[in-house]
Amino acid sequence: MTAPPVDASEPVWDKTRRAREKRLQAAARFADGKVVAPGDVQALLTAIIRSGDRVCLEGDNQKQADFLAGQLAGLDPQTVHDLHIVQSGLVLAEHLDLFETGIAKKLDFSYSGPQGGALARALSAGRIELGAIHTYIELFSRYFIDLTPHVALTVARACDRDGNLYMGPNTEDSPVVIEATAFKQGIVIAQVDDIVDKVPRVDVPGDRVDFVVKSPKPFYLEPLFTRDPAQITETQILTAMLAIRGIYEPYGVTRLNHGIGFNTAAIELILPTYGEKLGLKGKIATHFALNPHPTLIPAIESGWVQQIHSFGSEVGMDGYTSARPDIYFTGRDGSMSSNRMFCQAAGLYATDMFIGSTLQIDLQGNSSTVTRDRIAGFGGAPNMGSDPHGRRHASEAWLKAGREAAGAGLPRGRKLVVQIVETFGEKMVPTFVEKLDSLELAEALKLKLPPVMIYGDDVTHIVTEEGVANLLLCRTPDEREQAIRGVAGYTEVGRGRDKAMVEALRARKIIQRPEDLGVSMLDASRNLLAARSVKDLMYWSGNLYDPPAKFRNW
Amino acid sequence: MTAPPVDASEPVWDKTRRAREKRLQAAARFADGKVVAPGDVQALLTAIIRSGDRVCLEGDNQKQADFLAGQLAGLDPQTVHDLHIVQSGLVLAEHLDLFETGIAKKLDFSYSGPQGGALARALSAGRIELGAIHTYIELFSRYFIDLTPHVALTVARACDRDGNLYMGPNTEDSPVVIEATAFKQGIVIAQVDDIVDKVPRVDVPGDRVDFVVKSPKPFYLEPLFTRDPAQITETQILTAMLAIRGIYEPYGVTRLNHGIGFNTAAIELILPTYGEKLGLKGKIATHFALNPHPTLIPAIESGWVQQIHSFGSEVGMDGYTSARPDIYFTGRDGSMSSNRMFCQAAGLYATDMFIGSTLQIDLQGNSSTVTRDRIAGFGGAPNMGSDPHGRRHASEAWLKAGREAAGAGLPRGRKLVVQIVETFGEKMVPTFVEKLDSLELAEALKLKLPPVMIYGDDVTHIVTEEGVANLLLCRTPDEREQAIRGVAGYTEVGRGRDKAMVEALRARKIIQRPEDLGVSMLDASRNLLAARSVKDLMYWSGNLYDPPAKFRNW
Repeated sequence: MTAPPVDASEPVWDKTRRAREKRLQAAARFADGKVVAPGDVQALLTAIIRSGDRVCLEGDNQKQADFLAGQLAGLDPQTVHDLHIVQSGLVLAEHLDLFETGIAKKLDFSYSGPQGGALARALSAGRIELGAIHTYIELFSRYFIDLTPHVALTVARACDRDGNLYMGPNTEDSPVVIEATAFKQGIVIAQVDDIVDKVPRVDVPGDRVDFVVKSPKPFYLEPLFTRDPAQITETQILTAMLAIRGIYEPYGVTRLNHGIGFNTAAIELILPTYGEKLGLKGKIATHFALNPHPTLIPAIESGWVQQIHSFGSEVGMDGYTSARPDIYFTGRDGSMSSNRMFCQAAGLYATDMFIGSTLQIDLQGNSSTVTRDRIAGFGGAPNMGSDPHGRRHASEAWLKAGREAAGAGLPRGRKLVVQIVETFGEKMVPTFVEKLDSLELAEALKLKLPPVMIYGDDVTHIVTEEGVANLLLCRTPDEREQAIRGVAGYTEVGRGRDKAMVEALRARKIIQRPEDLGVSMLDASRNLLAARSVKDLMYWSGNLYDPPAKFRNW
Repeated sequence: MTAPPVDASEPVWDKTRRAREKRLQAAARFADGKVVAPGDVQALLTAIIRSGDRVCLEGDNQKQADFLAGQLAGLDPQTVHDLHIVQSGLVLAEHLDLFETGIAKKLDFSYSGPQGGALARALSAGRIELGAIHTYIELFSRYFIDLTPHVALTVARACDRDGNLYMGPNTEDSPVVIEATAFKQGIVIAQVDDIVDKVPRVDVPGDRVDFVVKSPKPFYLEPLFTRDPAQITETQILTAMLAIRGIYEPYGVTRLNHGIGFNTAAIELILPTYGEKLGLKGKIATHFALNPHPTLIPAIESGWVQQIHSFGSEVGMDGYTSARPDIYFTGRDGSMSSNRMFCQAAGLYATDMFIGSTLQIDLQGNSSTVTRDRIAGFGGAPNMGSDPHGRRHASEAWLKAGREAAGAGLPRGRKLVVQIVETFGEKMVPTFVEKLDSLELAEALKLKLPPVMIYGDDVTHIVTEEGVANLLLCRTPDEREQAIRGVAGYTEVGRGRDKAMVEALRARKIIQRPEDLGVSMLDASRNLLAARSVKDLMYWSGNLYDPPAKFRNW
């Protein structure tokens, strides 16, 4: 297995393959075939990883290769240093520890969630060289072009001794990470909860996997998409009613992605009540690119939803999704299957609407979830909240939006990109601002561009408790600004409106107030919620949904 | 294995799973485990496929499930009819036969190539109900949302008796087609060239595959990306030089996709000569999302290219790609690996430039490859030739293009989308037109929107033998039109230019003539081509490239 001597006069075209062989040889003594004992992982990693390597330490929206993260963080920075970390989710403390000790130096990522504050501090202090912040599918795409990992540290529920991986509902990013790494002569190491004789199904073939290690405890999984119905306010219910009346119904939106906030959870929960009363069943919200949101259970059980493809899973939803194969994608083993790359592509190209909330919206409609002291990353919103110019298939919703936009040139369709917010967010901080905080942050951290979640020119509607603004119908930047001010309530931006112009916009249905849409604020009651608690969701599911402990108060 | 009786009072959530079981039961007697004899395929298909089913009959850009296509076309239309065909490439005669006999009724597809004429006639005659024409990744995306196949008829080089599939360099669409079908309780049937004890690598795990059949002959593969250097004209070489001097060099384009025409083949072939002289090695064209183009061999051998990820393979290139694992993605078995879904995503989100040619360009820069009597479909161009608004990572090329576009609002980056054409195409048909033929065709066929390959507002540059037009720098629609006219040569569109305005645009470097770029037409000689024939390409490759018979004249 020793590499043949290289003739210096001949170009060599398999340096990567030879490098891989050398690393595998160095690592072989720490493994029994592909199986590594937990105690040998640090020795194995030291044998395999070279300083300066691009390493993907998986790192998803939800599931975490937490054992491998800890092991990597425990290496000797004298030996392994200056790694370039390329991973979608930077969410564990260990992920940042790598940069503190110098094991890692450069970072390309998508989402930081709970580590947003610590990440901003580390960037500020110059402890991290930032490549870029990506939307998921963009980072995955770069794995094939210029950010291909040399080493991928991945995670699965189980494997066999040949390295075939079983991920059940938690496939998420793994297939794309592993494909990019394995087929470019990189090395793939997986932590698994169990090593079994035969996996229930093969999510990643064993010949792409070099080493496996049974983790001392099951991998960590974050319940990210669980919204407790008990916390949904009547203002959120009002915005949900306005969205249904003002957008879902007139455009006939059947294929869509919902954000993960309380406003869209409210929409999910009033489909079987308010939506039913409007006679919209089967006409809206039938096909989703969506994680298994517990708050969608009542709509599913009431027969609203026809099909859902998921980015990842959700804690407590495994039993429910397995029992609903007509709705969810499930494998031969009976459990759900997810795939973040495919689902993000579906969210971009095969849905007619993205609807989600945000922290800040400026006068051009640009939005951001960045605050002065936190870098939350982007996740999937920039991708799904953009109008894909490459789309060529028509749908009624898309054609109607395109007609309303009525740009110069050939007739076109248009994706609906909706921001649903309350005019004041938590702690009464205004959602509408003259200038996004991310602009200041970009200056402070010397970012190449300010981090913007969704650019204003892609936003088609803004929904607040004051009404629905249809930006497609605006014909000048001025009209657009006034349409935004016109639904910005008592924020400074809202109070700065030109009242006559806003009334003119209302006459043209560019702004629609609750009363214009036949929505009475008095009806916006919590009684409209098909489930008012997590317990209700569990009942709706026939006890198939098993809520995580932190959502149980009974 | 019989399904339990269903209580009519209880909703059923596994109808799809039960339907699958029933079909598998009906089919079981025609198979030995998963293996079906070629003579039993029609009986098996009849047992499995139900009238009205969505069927993906693979049908890629290159590889074809041709045996299964013939078998499907031979079914009794009395028994199996009104299928909804959802497949990317409609390129075999059998694909259209299905619609002639009534076996199939509705069609959603991406690319028709050689069947473009026959397809237009069938649509005209009302024999096909057209869903939509898609760009590839868009159709794949819909497989997860509203066009999920009930049955996938796929194709591989080999399989084992468990159904594990080996595809070698020709993975193409298969993984995404099979994942969408198998995980939504559909049925997957693969034709293979060989059934072996152990496949060289697993491209698709066997538990996603229900039946396999050894085809009487190897599957058909179309050499789509081979351009004979002998046919490259000096005008094409001139446009290639202009593109390098006017775009690759000033923007520093390293990550890109080349179209498949002769103009971009010319660029590939002058990198090691003209590009070398300009000192651009390592500064441009280092990372590609690209099929293994034979015309890129000299640039690869000269050390220009660092990495290529491919949509599919190319006939004759298997030996070469296997021997260049530092450049191409290759598997543990040593052969190349492709993936159209991932590579299209990479072409959208991880490259800074798409450059390709087209048949027609109008005054707004909209382009089309549709003619009055042919529907060629879109393939990948609409996707890669669009500016992804969801992109968030910066590169120098992207930032420079964004600065030049200088739209209102926040600073942004911009993808370079370049059309490289000669002012007159084959048979002296003008490339520049007042109105695209596709508009007429759309009316004749009652399409919802005219088929446009790339919309003008995404096009950043047009290169012709008359010069380079930079549309980013145009500030009004008028300027844009004159910039286009200004490089349209002696076509009617070109002669209709406002000469003073075109000169003013030239002064602002919106139009750059060959002499402005230091390109002498006298230098545009075939001597610049690093290879002047297919034989030359073979020599460059050290005889690793094995050209298909139709390109051999020696």
